[in-house]
Parts: sequence; C-alpha cells; structure tokens
Amino acid sequence: MSLLIEASFSFSLDQPTDVLLQFEAASLPEQKIINPKTTLSASEHCARVPAQDDIGERIWIRAEGDFDVSYSARAEVQRMIAPLPSLEMLAPHDMPGEAVQYLFDSRYCPADQFQPFVEAEFGDTQGGARIAAIRDWIAQNLSYVPGSSGPDTGAVDSFVQRQGICRDYAHVLISLARASTIPARYVACYSPGVTPPDFHAVAEVFLEDPNTRDGGTWQLVDATGMATPEDIVKIGVGRDAADVSFLTSFGPSNFRSSRVSVVQE
Amino acid sequence: MSLLIEASFSFSLDQPTDVLLQFEAASLPEQKIINPKTTLSASEHCARVPAQDDIGERIWIRAEGDFDVSYSARAEVQRMIAPLPSLEMLAPHDMPGEAVQYLFDSRYCPADQFQPFVEAEFGDTQGGARIAAIRDWIAQNLSYVPGSSGPDTGAVDSFVQRQGICRDYAHVLISLARASTIPARYVACYSPGVTPPDFHAVAEVFLEDPNTRDGGTWQLVDATGMATPEDIVKIGVGRDAADVSFLTSFGPSNFRSSRVSVVQE
Amino acid sequence: MSLLIEASFSFSLDQPTDVLLQFEAASLPEQKIINPKTTLSASEHCARVPAQDDIGERIWIRAEGDFDVSYSARAEVQRMIAPLPSLEMLAPHDMPGEAVQYLFDSRYCPADQFQPFVEAEFGDTQGGARIAAIRDWIAQNLSYVPGSSGPDTGAVDSFVQRQGICRDYAHVLISLARASTIPARYVACYSPGVTPPDFHAVAEVFLEDPNTRDGGTWQLVDATGMATPEDIVKIGVGRDAADVSFLTSFGPSNFRSSRVSVVQE
Amino acid sequence: MSLLIEASFSFSLDQPTDVLLQFEAASLPEQKIINPKTTLSASEHCARVPAQDDIGERIWIRAEGDFDVSYSARAEVQRMIAPLPSLEMLAPHDMPGEAVQYLFDSRYCPADQFQPFVEAEFGDTQGGARIAAIRDWIAQNLSYVPGSSGPDTGAVDSFVQRQGICRDYAHVLISLARASTIPARYVACYSPGVTPPDFHAVAEVFLEDPNTRDGGTWQLVDATGMATPEDIVKIGVGRDAADVSFLTSFGPSNFRSSRVSVVQE
Repeated sequence: MSLLIEASFSFSLDQPTDVLLQFEAASLPEQKIINPKTTLSASEHCARVPAQDDIGERIWIRAEGDFDVSYSARAEVQRMIAPLPSLEMLAPHDMPGEAVQYLFDSRYCPADQFQPFVEAEFGDTQGGARIAAIRDWIAQNLSYVPGSSGPDTGAVDSFVQRQGICRDYAHVLISLARASTIPARYVACYSPGVTPPDFHAVAEVFLEDPNTRDGGTWQLVDATGMATPEDIVKIGVGRDAADVSFLTSFGPSNFRSSRVSVVQE
Repeated sequence: MSLLIEASFSFSLDQPTDVLLQFEAASLPEQKIINPKTTLSASEHCARVPAQDDIGERIWIRAEGDFDVSYSARAEVQRMIAPLPSLEMLAPHDMPGEAVQYLFDSRYCPADQFQPFVEAEFGDTQGGARIAAIRDWIAQNLSYVPGSSGPDTGAVDSFVQRQGICRDYAHVLISLARASTIPARYVACYSPGVTPPDFHAVAEVFLEDPNTRDGGTWQLVDATGMATPEDIVKIGVGRDAADVSFLTSFGPSNFRSSRVSVVQE
Repeated sequence: MSLLIEASFSFSLDQPTDVLLQFEAASLPEQKIINPKTTLSASEHCARVPAQDDIGERIWIRAEGDFDVSYSARAEVQRMIAPLPSLEMLAPHDMPGEAVQYLFDSRYCPADQFQPFVEAEFGDTQGGARIAAIRDWIAQNLSYVPGSSGPDTGAVDSFVQRQGICRDYAHVLISLARASTIPARYVACYSPGVTPPDFHAVAEVFLEDPNTRDGGTWQLVDATGMATPEDIVKIGVGRDAADVSFLTSFGPSNFRSSRVSVVQE
Repeated sequence: MSLLIEASFSFSLDQPTDVLLQFEAASLPEQKIINPKTTLSASEHCARVPAQDDIGERIWIRAEGDFDVSYSARAEVQRMIAPLPSLEMLAPHDMPGEAVQYLFDSRYCPADQFQPFVEAEFGDTQGGARIAAIRDWIAQNLSYVPGSSGPDTGAVDSFVQRQGICRDYAHVLISLARASTIPARYVACYSPGVTPPDFHAVAEVFLEDPNTRDGGTWQLVDATGMATPEDIVKIGVGRDAADVSFLTSFGPSNFRSSRVSVVQE
C-alpha cells in the first residue's frame, strides 16, 4: 500500500529548553520511505539519535520561542501478515533477551495487577488467539471518546473508566498481553483510517514464528479497529507512550497545534 | 575490594508458573566474579538470557511447588571513581541513543511531575553537583524504615511519605535526576554495609566523561549512604525495580524467605 | 438473633499519641446491646464522642507504650428486611440532605469514574435490582484473598486486581452504587459467619421506603456473602474505611494483634 | 464589607440527567445575603436540600439539553477575625463529634501519608501557628498555574508537582492540617481578589476558642493569598472539592462556560 503522509505541529518554549521529537516514519524492510522532507525551526542545537530497538530516529533540539515542525513523505508498506489466532505463544524460556523487557510493568502499563483478570476472562485461550480475544474485549468494552483522557492517564484508569483514545486502547491491550506473559510494546504510527486524522498509536505483541532466527516476530494489533497491519506506517516503538511521544519536553512548553494527513494513493 | 557473597531465597508456586530470576553478580570489566555457584530446585524448563544493557543474566524457570535458590561467589571490585561534583552534565543532543531511554518516565519513576520541584530546589546546581545535592536532600528528608513500603510503592509515594527502603531511595533519586534531564537507571546489587543484610538497590546516573567513546559514563549513587561505588557488586540494571527484581512471577507465587550475606574479605 | 461478641486488640505507641478507637456495637432500635463491657489500658486522656450519623461512639485516647482493648457484649438483632430487588431507587430530588453526601467520591471510593461501566453493565436494572446485580457481579468477579490488599487499597485497585477482603468488596459495591446515583455508605460490623473471624465490613445503600419520614431507608448488603442483614451488628458507618477504622492513629503506631469472636447463642 | 456577586454558567446534557448545583452564597450570621436572584433553565424536576453542615443549599435538577444558571446577590460580610498564630490547637479528646470527620482522609486529601512530612517540617509549631506556617510554606513552594490541574488532581499530585489552582492549594493545606490532627474542611466561596475572576476555594481549620459552646471555631485560610477572611463569601463546605462542586453531574455532561464577577461596593 502506498500512503502520502503530511504532518505538522508547533509549540513554544519560554526559555531555552531541551526537547525530544519523534515524528518521522521509520525506514524498515517492510516500509519503504520515499522523499521524506523534514522542516524544523531554527534551534541552538539539533541532533539525531537512533530510537528504541533501532526503529526510527529521535531528534534532539534545544530551542526557545515558537517552534514549528513539518514533515512529509510517501510510504510503501509491504508487511507480511499472519492471521493472529493461528500464532502460538512463545514459551518464556525461549524468548530472546530483547523481548523480555516488554513483559515488565511500565509507566502507563502496570500489567501485573491484571493477572487475575486475564486468567478469569481469557484463561481458555492462548497466544495469538488470546490477543485476538483481548482486542475484541477492548473494542466491545471501551468507547473511543476524544478528550476523555490526558497525559497522566494510564491503563488502570482506562480499564476502569471504559473510555479513551488510541493511546489508551494500546495501553490496555499491552497491559493485558503482558499479564498473559506475552511481550507487548507501544507503536506510534501513521495510518489513513484514523478519525479524526491525528498521530495514531497501536500495540505490537511478540508471538512465535518458527521461520525467524529469534523464534518469534512482532505482530501489530489495533484495538480501536481504525488501522490494520497493512496500512500502518511505524514511527517508533517503546514500552508505552512515555517512550515515543512526538514531543517530549524537558522543561515547560506550550503546545499550540498539530495537523496530520495520511492518504492512500 | 574483595567480597564474599552468599544469598538464598525460596518461594512456592501452586501451579506450573513462569518465573524470572535475577540474583547473580554480573561479570563486568570492573567487577570480576570468582567461583560463582548457583543451585536451583528442579524445574520443567530453565533458560538463561542476557539481561538489560547486557549487564548480567536473567534465568527463566517454569516450575511448580517449592522452589529454592542458593548462590555464592567471590567478587573483586575495581571501579574507577570520579568525584561526583566534578562531573558535567552531558548535553542531551550529545547523549548516545542507549542513554536516552533512561530519561523517560517508568513504572515507579514518573519523573516529569518533578520538574518544577527540581528547578526550584536544585536550580542553581548542574550535572554531578546537582546529583550530589539531590542525594544529600534525599538522605536528609527521607527515613529508612523497613516495612514502610511495598511492591506498589513508587517515587511519588516515597517523596510524599518521606520514608522507604533502598529501592524507594533509588526511585526518588532516579526521578529527580531524570526531571533534571540526566539519564538515570536502577541498579540491583550486593553490598557489605547493608543493614539489615539484604539485596540492595542503588541508582546510576549518566554524566560526561570526555575519555569515553560515548562521551559519558554511568556513576553509582546510593542515597541511603549504606553503599559506596567501591563496594557495590552489580546484579543488573533497568529503568526501575520493575525491571530487575530478583523474583518476577508471571502468575501467583508465595514468597517464603530470603537470606543475604556480603562480607569483605 | 442473639449474638455473643468478644473482641480484643493491642498496639503500641512510641511516644504520646492521639488515637481514635471505634469497636463497640452501636445501640440502635434494631440492635439491642446487652451487658457491654469495655476495658482499656490506662491513658493520659480518654473521651467519647458520638460517631458519624449518630450511629455508635468513637473513643479518643491519648496514650504511650503498650495499649490493650478488650470488649464483650450480647446483641439482640431484630432488623426489618426487605427483599432488595423489590425496592425502588429514590429520585435524587427526593433524597434527604443527609443522604446526599453518600453520593460523593470519597478516599477509597472514587465513584464517578465508574459511571460508564455501571451504565454498560447494569444499565437495564434500577434501584434495589441494580444493587442486587452489582452484589452478584462482585461475588462472581472478585476473589476473597486475605493479605491481598492493604490500608492504601481503594476501589479502583480492587476492581482491577479482582481480589480483596471484606473492606475491598464493600468499597467496590459502594463505588458502583454511587456511580448509579444511589447513596451508599460503609458499615463496620460484627457478624458470626466471617471466616477467618475478624472485624467485618459491609455496604449500606439508601433506597425508597414509602413508610418512612425521609422517603427512604438504609439497606445492608454484603457482597462477600458471609453476612446477612439478620446477623449483622453495626459498629459504625462512614463514607468508606477511612471513617470507621477500629484504630486510627494520629502519629506512628505499631499494631500488635487482634482477636474477634462472634457466636450465635 | 459589602460585595456584589454575579455568576453564570451553562452546560448541556445529552439525555435526561440528575445534576447537583451549589453556587448560591449561604445565609449565615456572619454573612448577610441581600436580594439574591437565581435563574435556572426549565427542568423536569428541581429541589433544594440543605447542604453539608447546614451551610447553604444544594439544588437538584433533572434536565436535558442546554442548561443555563445565573445568580446575583449582595453580601454583607462581618466576620470575627482572630490572628491565626494566637489560636491554640484543640486537644482531640475535646473536639466535638461533628469536627472529627474533618480529620479523616477524603477523596482528594489522603492526609495520613503526610504525617512524617508535617512532623519534620512543622514539628516545632502548634495549632494556629502551625497552620500559618503551613500556609506560608504552600505560598512559597507552589505556583499558581491556571490549567495545570484537572478534576482528578489531588493533594498528592499538587504536593509533588508544586503547582495548581485555588482548589489544589486548599487540598494541600487541608491535608497538612489533618496530618497535624487539626480538623480541616474545604470552602467553596466568592471573593473579590480572585484573578482571573472565578469561583474560589479556600480551607477552614478548627481551632480552640474558649468563648464557644463547642470549645472551638472554624477559621478561614487561603494559601493562595488572593482572599482574606474579611472578604470571603461562603457558598458551602465539605471534606474536599468532591463535596462542594458548583456542578456535579450523575451522568455525562458537557460544560460550556462560566463567568464570575465579585466587586466590592
């Protein structure tokens, strides 16, 4: 699938402040990025570093005053898709070391608390079938309500309040997966079906794949139903939203506006 | 310094359960591990994987019923120590990609909330001098009270309640460091001065070191004052205690007892 | 029903400390208290005040060192019992002013967050029938696990973790009732069926009763299933456990032990 | 002091919903309310009930669609003011039963956690002098930042984040007072010095007054410094903001706007 991505956002900084940006589509074997164009306001310093799990890049800036970011690119997505219920869980003792960190509790995903719930609700399913059951449970029990959550909202809040946005859906799915001893990470992404158009977020779970060196592969899952693995363009991954915000400010900042457009060509 | 380490703990599992163990001293250039001996109860499966940042190893077991772990080793520690206040902060845009993750909020260290506090309390210090000031502030304002915290206690709780144990001291220090844009991680370790003797935890911060390839090095800091960089034997590191528990159970488990002895030879 | 109550507990105070005690069965029209006997260690000061909603009494002491409390009484309970599903909800504009406070969020019962859940799960029931449905849902979805919760555990934790003790069951029921616009309060009590024997806690909800001056009456509900309205002897009521602990210390205290026995005669 | 109060706010309800309103200045011996005028949109039901501690009234409405509230009144305030540091603490065993509830933890004021902090920071002061010290500490350590907090923000958050609005200042003061065994309640009010003009909130603490029947009186304290006891017109009181919101909706509601003007005549 070929997608045209255009994104821009702006913020202001009252004093010289370090800010971390991550908004560019990542160059990956399964997603080819063509003609990427990034325009940033002038800054005192600007540096790129590889992002988490070597997926995409982060941009450090140190700046003051108004700051504008604009980005455009075309992405060709050709992702191998496996039917989720057909995939087995990887036994923990067979997991590669890099996947293990995605079993642990993180800022917005205190997963261990959900162990009794997943056992009671999903105890008769395993592996990919359990992930599919969790995804369907979330789709059925949560309402997508823009404005119902904020930067402090975590999976416990969303599970109790039964509402949220894409980031909250992903946090609940990640928590329930980890509580099932299935590694799960957070994926910031672009996708054409997001309504209203915005930066999007989905989850990714690590399930068995006998054809790989590691014994497993990461599978994209979107409990909101707005995106499918075929039309997701990854920006970056992390344990949860704390790791892959498009804007992380190490000091006070005022967010002004953002605009995202993702169109299938 | 030469240290003799002996540790044992036991727990029971009502049904076959996956458990992750991390209790062995890590083999590192600055700490040589001699005659390590690990004895585990019989298990259905047992596998070792490299632990976070390739420091030490994690052991996966799948077992049922009573389980005993015992470990002994001798450790020769020869760590280069730099006087903390002399170290500069590394500018964010100069940080290696691997250090950046240690700036983010984690399960027990929601650091961003502390930005106004660190600015107000420590705003006139920078880099290593700020870390020293934070360490001294914690030592002065928190009381070491065994039993005052539990597995759900995070840095916000400890900051408010002004008490905790080693793990809580480390979480507060890590949070205040990250809120100062200084990468900080959690270090599970052995150390001879811990009273009462137990597994110990300290923090590690990433500060400038012009002599290294990365431009910076990790520096150990113990706000409890019980350990010094010279006598700390690292087990493993992570974002906070969620990543490097000696026992992480993916299902119900009953902890029975532990015993730790660390003696200088 | 006639019940013989015996209770004792002890604690110690390192320095002169104000402590509030509430453990005596309340004298009420529907529960007659016979031969009550309270024995307290010597204290610097001791005073009784009426407790919340004029149900029972609280005892203030100021003491230091070891402190023992022992209490015995016989209680004759003759409570009018209405079948819960037959009771209507009282329209909010018909509620007496005293009942309104029991609709609000309290320390352990942040009820407003549960509004979408109660609407989705119990939206087709009203009044007493909804309370019965909530009680049955809790009984089915939570496990009674002594030791699984602590003094900081609130209804959100218990709802997520799906386990707790009597106090947690009451907090969840109270939260879901309030989220249904039904006033609900916490009742500390004695009851013979509690296993293991201990102080008990249940919930009480305010539902329509055309025969009363207020238009409504309080109805006891125990989601743990261990007590019935016929065999509950109230100690006191409050918004949640923060209001009616048998021991509230305004300074450090060390709880030593307690023993409770309630036997039907 | 004579004050002219004008307030209006509006909200909308997608379906018939019960809503509790509390915005009228309370008639009290120390504040005379002249020419009060309340205008409400049409509603299915409307009823008034006495509010907490018999201070002011609450209005229940059941309505649907757009709803507008407007209110005006003149208030003559003649409040006896005592210099805070001159007031003694009332010994707990001398407190009237009604004051005791204001020592307990509430939704936004989990006061017990602050006991070690108040002991360390304010241990050398007592009674009114301690309250003055707490007020000054808050004024010095918190920043008044409109928009920095929300409906879920509690005293722990504000204490950690060192910022908030009037409601947060009151919650921190109430928590630190209760942790000092001084009863404290939340006061919704009007006051002319509030910038930007809005509904205001302050705290009230119960301190010794030998001239009263109860042995004590409630004293107003505003840690924001925007109001003084002389120019505060009380709307109502409660344990914290959960009890005295101007708008509490028992179902989804959309707040649209509010306007408040308080002018000294």
